[in-house]
Amino acid sequence: VGRQAHRTVVDLEASILAKNDERAARNRAWLAGRETLAINLMSAPGAGKTTLLERTIHDLAKEQQLFVIEGDQATANDGERIRDAGAPVVQVNTGTGCHLDAEMVARGLNELKPPARSLVIIENVGNLVCPALFDLGETAKVAILSVTEGDDKPIKYPHMFRAAALILINKIDLLPHVDFSVEKAVGRAREVNPGVEVMTLSARTGEGLAAWYGWLAARRAATGATMGL
Amino acid sequence: VGRQAHRTVVDLEASILAKNDERAARNRAWLAGRETLAINLMSAPGAGKTTLLERTIHDLAKEQQLFVIEGDQATANDGERIRDAGAPVVQVNTGTGCHLDAEMVARGLNELKPPARSLVIIENVGNLVCPALFDLGETAKVAILSVTEGDDKPIKYPHMFRAAALILINKIDLLPHVDFSVEKAVGRAREVNPGVEVMTLSARTGEGLAAWYGWLAARRAATGATMGL
Repeated sequence: VGRQAHRTVVDLEASILAKNDERAARNRAWLAGRETLAINLMSAPGAGKTTLLERTIHDLAKEQQLFVIEGDQATANDGERIRDAGAPVVQVNTGTGCHLDAEMVARGLNELKPPARSLVIIENVGNLVCPALFDLGETAKVAILSVTEGDDKPIKYPHMFRAAALILINKIDLLPHVDFSVEKAVGRAREVNPGVEVMTLSARTGEGLAAWYGWLAARRAATGATMGL
Repeated sequence: VGRQAHRTVVDLEASILAKNDERAARNRAWLAGRETLAINLMSAPGAGKTTLLERTIHDLAKEQQLFVIEGDQATANDGERIRDAGAPVVQVNTGTGCHLDAEMVARGLNELKPPARSLVIIENVGNLVCPALFDLGETAKVAILSVTEGDDKPIKYPHMFRAAALILINKIDLLPHVDFSVEKAVGRAREVNPGVEVMTLSARTGEGLAAWYGWLAARRAATGATMGL
């Protein structure tokens, strides 16, 4: 790509991001108006986002209904898993696209129509790169890192781990079988995102899930109707 | 994004892909001129691309030197691991970019200067989405799926698994500890890519690596100087 074309691409990327940010700001205002907490859940493919959601829907069934926007390149499999677990869900397929954007989420929210004071979880496309760049209007971004991926990932994908308000280290039941240092992973996460909250858990065995539920409840309680100015 | 802007984006994406394809065709011609096999190695983050490469460099040291182009969002860690393993390597950092493109590979080949009749491995950015769309001029695409990611991935990321000439199911040493059916994964891979070759291996224990080395040797032997017309 020549210099002029490159410039056009960069300008257009900036313009796409600016349009997305506008749309995301409106999503955020709508969510505030509805006093609704929205979490943008992100990770590499197969890190356990859907399994964590299934378990969370099940364990919180009596206290807190979840509403889910499910992003995938293809198939409705994850949407069906979430519906079977008992939560209202809208499935978004991105085709060749590598991330959800704010307009997809706006359409998802319109369709999902969560009642006031809800908890909405947006499961992004499995990808540690692109989703980090696109604001969806969520209240907070949560990144999952599974121990089978290696403890170097936070510095190799710094944009993702810098954007996260909370990092969940998942699949700790597999720690005895892999070369993964939780201490190193946490240190590297804080290299790119000082002070970020990190929790270790296993969505399969249930270990460590109480802290995650506590975090959700605290964020839920702190979600008011105040708009950012 | 409105209809007109959307149209501009789609046109520009098509134009970026067309420019990339032209550059990729020149890379492919250069590689043919050099009778050199180039493999585009792709997977999700943490599926074991670098570990497989380290092991391959070590095990083939006496028969076949490898030359490596190493793609990452950030850090030179993987480049250093490959250099330590004994292969000449060029590290490419993509910043916020989610994949290598043909121009990066052209620059990498110019710098790496592999001798005629070489074997070049291009380790793409860890991502199951974007790298599938960008031809690098490689001889063949190889996709790794690790058993910790789940056996549903081929249909959830169909573009990647459709593009692959060979799929390596890695980390089979962890099969006793995870819910993963090799049979289902192979079936789903062939749903999107009928007749694709699939091998199971563990880069950590060495199980199954002989078949991978055999595949490389056969592709190497079949790599001639004929240009596509």
